[in-house]
Amino acid sequence: MRAITIKEPGGPEVLEWTEVEDPAPQAGEVIVDVAASALNGADVAQRLGFYPVPEGASPYPGLEASGRISAVGEGVTGWQVGDEVCALLSGGGYAQKVAVPAGQLLTVPRGVSLVEAAALPEAAATVWSNVVMTGHLAEGETFLMHGGAGGVGTMAIQVAKALGARVVTTVSGAKTADARELGADVTIDYKTEDFAEHGPYDVILDVIGGDYLERNVRSLALEGRLVVIGMQKGFEGKLNLAELVFQRKSVFGTTLRSRPADQKAAIVAAVQRHVWPMIESGAVRPVIDRTVPMSQAAEAHRLMAAGGHIGKILLVDD
Amino acid sequence: MRAITIKEPGGPEVLEWTEVEDPAPQAGEVIVDVAASALNGADVAQRLGFYPVPEGASPYPGLEASGRISAVGEGVTGWQVGDEVCALLSGGGYAQKVAVPAGQLLTVPRGVSLVEAAALPEAAATVWSNVVMTGHLAEGETFLMHGGAGGVGTMAIQVAKALGARVVTTVSGAKTADARELGADVTIDYKTEDFAEHGPYDVILDVIGGDYLERNVRSLALEGRLVVIGMQKGFEGKLNLAELVFQRKSVFGTTLRSRPADQKAAIVAAVQRHVWPMIESGAVRPVIDRTVPMSQAAEAHRLMAAGGHIGKILLVDD
Repeated sequence: MRAITIKEPGGPEVLEWTEVEDPAPQAGEVIVDVAASALNGADVAQRLGFYPVPEGASPYPGLEASGRISAVGEGVTGWQVGDEVCALLSGGGYAQKVAVPAGQLLTVPRGVSLVEAAALPEAAATVWSNVVMTGHLAEGETFLMHGGAGGVGTMAIQVAKALGARVVTTVSGAKTADARELGADVTIDYKTEDFAEHGPYDVILDVIGGDYLERNVRSLALEGRLVVIGMQKGFEGKLNLAELVFQRKSVFGTTLRSRPADQKAAIVAAVQRHVWPMIESGAVRPVIDRTVPMSQAAEAHRLMAAGGHIGKILLVDD
Repeated sequence: MRAITIKEPGGPEVLEWTEVEDPAPQAGEVIVDVAASALNGADVAQRLGFYPVPEGASPYPGLEASGRISAVGEGVTGWQVGDEVCALLSGGGYAQKVAVPAGQLLTVPRGVSLVEAAALPEAAATVWSNVVMTGHLAEGETFLMHGGAGGVGTMAIQVAKALGARVVTTVSGAKTADARELGADVTIDYKTEDFAEHGPYDVILDVIGGDYLERNVRSLALEGRLVVIGMQKGFEGKLNLAELVFQRKSVFGTTLRSRPADQKAAIVAAVQRHVWPMIESGAVRPVIDRTVPMSQAAEAHRLMAAGGHIGKILLVDD
């Protein structure tokens, strides 16, 4: 098969469409012939050499994919050759075939095409695990999403809205209308407005980190939960413990990719049970900026770096 | 009745044994004729003027007490005049009578005297709510208690041990033997040793705050939970978000006193269900440094400030 390999750490140009060995299914895995994969921020970090590949994971980038099952490993039940699926991956989506633990497979939701389904697994699992399983966002609460225009942001707005929360998000410029259309009740231009003014927030999902930590914690409501999943502004932040102690606030950090297989399976099962019905009812939809042939992954990475996209950039089988 | 009043914010000498009006039971409350109360750090903060009395709470200090029910308000079921009880209070334990929401009453555990029972409610509720309900300490995990000699510390060591955890605590000098006797597997003299060396810890219960925040978070295991309930070294700390994000660590802050009545009732019910059997089986016992007549509360506060005590200092009815 072919896969996108990383020649050496560097810019988009290090991504090469290369002939590599086919994956073989281990016990508990299936092989998916990839119809589409999608870009995630972690792919860029991996390309730059900042995100070590977890043990046992494919060395090729790509944290989600859709396609058809072409082989089933020992001990897998409930899935058959020919099934159309999408999947949460530990890597390897930028390829013609990928091995997937059966616990990370999802059906293709009714009303979504096989290619479109590649936009769903990582965003839905990230949002459900962090906003609901960790953050316990409930109906009637206020939710702040930092960066409402990305893959996670566009999913988070829709899922939080479907849960009955008041949804606030930071976006800027032309993306404001998109965030509104997806269900945001309030949009904040972070370049000119202080997000704290539209709080307090019961749950904040943050990809910024750095000096946002202090402002995020201050903006939380009584018993509010901050979940940090990215650190675009850096690792180091200040924390006022009095805010936590007297107002029973909490701060969590997670990454999806580094979780052990049993946790990923539990998250994927919850996504299938809770998020897929939202998609099938039309309350939540995949938001896809564009599709790019997989051999041109370098160009797709350049588009993502330019930052003009809304939702997911997909890579499709050549 | 008489109660300890705070003449003005200040040292122990501002505590005066004063004739005041008897409390009347509101709907859902009982009146307890106090046999004993116990000192807590929050009482000192209240005396100094640093801990505003929550709305609706008694103005007198005292967050726990034991005694006999002498009146039962409207709508209270399951409790009768004459019952021996102990109780978690929002204030008012340093008095001859105190009004208590029925949801905050506990039986006196078998094998514990009525006076001794005053040492239990606040420590047991603090430990169970933070270590178990928030921190989810599980059998086989490692638990660090900062300050193993106080009322919360002596309870935390015993409860964590009874849960099957490996228990590490910071103490110094002569108190080391007491902490060991209560069940600590490892004792650390924080004056000469770095607590991080005996980690990593699955759950840390911290009363220190300040620059301990950074070291606490660094000492947590993968998916470790830090629960901060005191800030003896100050409010401001640094947090390395990469520790949280890549190792799925979390930081919580709480105070028991400021929680709403429904949360206190849920905690008290869990304590009755889970901690009382540990006491009745002998796995956990109240640790009482000494008893002091309630009229001499000022002297009791001086003893606590001197810091030589192990466990609780009780105030007993004159």
